[in-house]
Amino acid sequence: MKIEKLPRSKVSSLDRILGVPFKVLDDGFVRVIDYMGSDESIVQAARVSYGKGTKKVNEDRGLIRYLMRHHHSTPFEMCEIKLHVRVPMDCWRQWIRHRTANVNEYSTRYSIAIDAAQKTSPAEWRKQAAGNRQGSEDVVDEEVGAVLTQKESDFQKAARDLYEDRLSVGIAREQARKDLPLSTYTEAYWKIDLHNLLHFLALRMEAHAQFEIRSYANIIGHEIVKKWCPLTWEGFLDYRMNAMTLSAIEAEIIAKITAGETKKAYNIAMQLGLISKENPEKKNRERDELTKKILRFNLPVPW
Amino acid sequence: MKIEKLPRSKVSSLDRILGVPFKVLDDGFVRVIDYMGSDESIVQAARVSYGKGTKKVNEDRGLIRYLMRHHHSTPFEMCEIKLHVRVPMDCWRQWIRHRTANVNEYSTRYSIAIDAAQKTSPAEWRKQAAGNRQGSEDVVDEEVGAVLTQKESDFQKAARDLYEDRLSVGIAREQARKDLPLSTYTEAYWKIDLHNLLHFLALRMEAHAQFEIRSYANIIGHEIVKKWCPLTWEGFLDYRMNAMTLSAIEAEIIAKITAGETKKAYNIAMQLGLISKENPEKKNRERDELTKKILRFNLPVPW
Amino acid sequence: MKIEKLPRSKVSSLDRILGVPFKVLDDGFVRVIDYMGSDESIVQAARVSYGKGTKKVNEDRGLIRYLMRHHHSTPFEMCEIKLHVRVPMDCWRQWIRHRTANVNEYSTRYSIAIDAAQKTSPAEWRKQAAGNRQGSEDVVDEEVGAVLTQKESDFQKAARDLYEDRLSVGIAREQARKDLPLSTYTEAYWKIDLHNLLHFLALRMEAHAQFEIRSYANIIGHEIVKKWCPLTWEGFLDYRMNAMTLSAIEAEIIAKITAGETKKAYNIAMQLGLISKENPEKKNRERDELTKKILRFNLPVPW
Amino acid sequence: MKIEKLPRSKVSSLDRILGVPFKVLDDGFVRVIDYMGSDESIVQAARVSYGKGTKKVNEDRGLIRYLMRHHHSTPFEMCEIKLHVRVPMDCWRQWIRHRTANVNEYSTRYSIAIDAAQKTSPAEWRKQAAGNRQGSEDVVDEEVGAVLTQKESDFQKAARDLYEDRLSVGIAREQARKDLPLSTYTEAYWKIDLHNLLHFLALRMEAHAQFEIRSYANIIGHEIVKKWCPLTWEGFLDYRMNAMTLSAIEAEIIAKITAGETKKAYNIAMQLGLISKENPEKKNRERDELTKKILRFNLPVPW
Repeated sequence: MKIEKLPRSKVSSLDRILGVPFKVLDDGFVRVIDYMGSDESIVQAARVSYGKGTKKVNEDRGLIRYLMRHHHSTPFEMCEIKLHVRVPMDCWRQWIRHRTANVNEYSTRYSIAIDAAQKTSPAEWRKQAAGNRQGSEDVVDEEVGAVLTQKESDFQKAARDLYEDRLSVGIAREQARKDLPLSTYTEAYWKIDLHNLLHFLALRMEAHAQFEIRSYANIIGHEIVKKWCPLTWEGFLDYRMNAMTLSAIEAEIIAKITAGETKKAYNIAMQLGLISKENPEKKNRERDELTKKILRFNLPVPW
Repeated sequence: MKIEKLPRSKVSSLDRILGVPFKVLDDGFVRVIDYMGSDESIVQAARVSYGKGTKKVNEDRGLIRYLMRHHHSTPFEMCEIKLHVRVPMDCWRQWIRHRTANVNEYSTRYSIAIDAAQKTSPAEWRKQAAGNRQGSEDVVDEEVGAVLTQKESDFQKAARDLYEDRLSVGIAREQARKDLPLSTYTEAYWKIDLHNLLHFLALRMEAHAQFEIRSYANIIGHEIVKKWCPLTWEGFLDYRMNAMTLSAIEAEIIAKITAGETKKAYNIAMQLGLISKENPEKKNRERDELTKKILRFNLPVPW
Repeated sequence: MKIEKLPRSKVSSLDRILGVPFKVLDDGFVRVIDYMGSDESIVQAARVSYGKGTKKVNEDRGLIRYLMRHHHSTPFEMCEIKLHVRVPMDCWRQWIRHRTANVNEYSTRYSIAIDAAQKTSPAEWRKQAAGNRQGSEDVVDEEVGAVLTQKESDFQKAARDLYEDRLSVGIAREQARKDLPLSTYTEAYWKIDLHNLLHFLALRMEAHAQFEIRSYANIIGHEIVKKWCPLTWEGFLDYRMNAMTLSAIEAEIIAKITAGETKKAYNIAMQLGLISKENPEKKNRERDELTKKILRFNLPVPW
Repeated sequence: MKIEKLPRSKVSSLDRILGVPFKVLDDGFVRVIDYMGSDESIVQAARVSYGKGTKKVNEDRGLIRYLMRHHHSTPFEMCEIKLHVRVPMDCWRQWIRHRTANVNEYSTRYSIAIDAAQKTSPAEWRKQAAGNRQGSEDVVDEEVGAVLTQKESDFQKAARDLYEDRLSVGIAREQARKDLPLSTYTEAYWKIDLHNLLHFLALRMEAHAQFEIRSYANIIGHEIVKKWCPLTWEGFLDYRMNAMTLSAIEAEIIAKITAGETKKAYNIAMQLGLISKENPEKKNRERDELTKKILRFNLPVPW
């Protein structure tokens, strides 16, 4: 392997936005503090494994797509990014569940809590989803929303007053904070490698992720990662984000449909529990998911 | 290495409390759901490394203490415990920062939030510490406390009403929860290996940890780990929890004091920044910490 | 949530094989030392998230499949297993790359190296794969194999002699071992949670994994995990091991084929780089992979 | 918190050595490929927690020392470094046991093994330590060493010939490599955050670590980390590397000695197992360690 003095890897399109906040929600943001590596350093790391030197850009793209397609994740771990984020605590509770990251959060033991809470405008109050116990859909009427927004505003003010009252009589910050609402903003430095960041984005840009964290994930993906590692981003969209997975069962049913054996396809679905024997009309979530895939392929749905 | 059919490792004193909740705070608890291993399996794992068979209990104790003293952590990772905990969200925010654990938390997207918030009684309102920006000390007068408790109670009721109002007009649970106070209880299954649990306990049983999480840590240590792995627990108290660390500087200063060279000790302290040259009376936190150690050794304090 | 004294979770079919070695390769093995949890504890952990109690077995299966299908990995992390393995060091080098596990390995600093090296019989010498730079295929003639086996046997004996010579003149074990061949067996305790174990198995049971580690992975999967958590194992085979992933590009091409637009499918493939414009006959690995998927669905291949 | 466009953090003294190999052992090296952060970014991250802006260099040093002294590890995790290393496989086996790092290793499945093995010169053959089962001390006579070196040279040549013979008859690289000696060099990209790197260094720069990996650790510490984060390096030496830990027992015994109660100190030592009741002369490793600490403090040893 050739050894030489190296210039530091840099990505001009990312350097241009270092420190610049992308606004998210009513008062949140994401901004890049620092980064390590680029598409080229992914290739460089992969080529250490292969014992090879540098090649043409065209071949870099092919290699990155190959790595992505075959789940060779270690070269993507060679890139690292550090973000400064401002997020409601409720959203942060979900965020922090991704353990493979380094975190320094604003301390409300040490300092007075940030005086900002996420506000919901009259048009943004979402209804409980009918078909999905953990989601939301549509919004309530703006009239209803306006009442909710007013009540929220009053409540958040009362919560802050309570907090400041406690501080004013000398209560410790660590205890005074105990009734702050989850909507209170917090800030953190969050540092993660590209492989784990893509995993975070795959879960949090997904349609069923909660709106708030999805808003952050979309900004991180489309405004930051796309500028940082464009070839990786393209591969990620193709092979992960927009990929379709067929279970062994689903692949078998589709193979029967394409072979024209619709009846067999139906029987397999029944046999494997996608259609209830007692009540074939009974809703089945796995079957509904498969139906969408069959329709994407313009194939006849056997049920 | 001798190979044989094995009975499953079990610890009777822990089996007796499986599932039994230890009460913490006003409405929290910790209970053991399951565990893997024991003091003996730590020894067994260490002896795989050493290529040796089983020995006498007496030698087990010596080996465990040796491992603890020399930071050989991998044998302790061979034990695992699963707890079910009920904790205020504010406390859980600290807890979850320990990343090397497996977690399943109660979901307030999927289910209605637990209808309980941590209440502070009139005698429990702590004052901001004077000497430590992130701590508390003493409590405020009970009269003041009584007012705070009443206001808290009213506020927590108002918060719950707001939450239920939102649900009643059809707002999605994931959004309705956004203004719940941090005092709201959550529950989780928390699974961790013994090495990482001891690290958690060392940080959270420590005097400067916040009272709430310290309460949980003390129960986990003194009521659970002590029953589970008594030899390890004893070693942990000796070599970690109650150990004293002297920095290179501190060791050098103490060596001067014990050699009777108090003046030299003073000079070193000044030279290394523990005593201000301009203002020797100026408070210095590192020097205060050292003073306590010197006094523990009945030695003369040079400043 | 109902709280009660718990019996310890156990799995009889796994208890029956505790400690019993499954032979792998010529002199290796895998045996279960201990475990925590079962299919039921996965369900139990998921239901903490959902705030629900226990249900019928039938519903357990549905829930486990749902978790698997939607990549809800945390409930699977609630199960843990500890194995004792005996593996050639060459294979262990690959094994240990999976970082999310606890390990205690036999120490050749502390003890004399295990006197066993993996031997290859005349019929087992594999040829370098033609189409895959990192694989093997077929075997060489047994005559050639017999020569290789004899040379290997002589070499391994010479290596051991060299090692023992060094020890006999007083060289430290930590240095004497430096020229042991990678075929030398090592032993270790290896402890991992079920989610990460399934990830290990997905990568190492796969057809392109090296034969040696694949042999261990197959034993762990089919002989151990299947007995331990049968519902999870079934779901893993359906949704992971035997699932088919279509990239966004592949799904689009297949959708064109099923719509009868074969020419468009061809053009998309060319546009996206699966077919070379200059030389359409040129081999392309991504296209070859897609061809197999198209054939599985009995569809016409557009190229 | 003030928000602004940021220049990228850089450390000139490290930029000057980017890519330049530091030679280790006979044919190994370490070189820096890239890095993220500096002493200043540790301070910056800590101040996010404290909600404060930037201060004077003098205060930076105090803060870094405070963080180090009180085991506030998360700010140190905000720095990351990527090294390219060339290491004998035997040494790499130890290295890779540190799991909290990202790794891309040269693949001997994909490429022909590096044609270099670590050679030991006649003056470097170390003897087995008498008092420590896992260490070495002194070296054997050069005459004996010369014979060992010659035999090693012959053996390593034979091993390479065997490997190339196998390749020449078409054996797959993944199998041909199985008898390569552990002394064979491998290369890898190794990326780790500063907190975990310091943990690695604390264990591997320590006197009992094996000479080979200690050589790498010393280069990484004294040649690289010292240039990269000089304030952190200074604090690390004071509070970790050269610190002294006294167990609860040791502190108690020393307190008795300094109080002039030597007899009591002796009795405590006996009571706690440092002195055998049956045979007070019997060697005890924990007592020997304590003796050294007592002597460092110029105190009378009670036994």
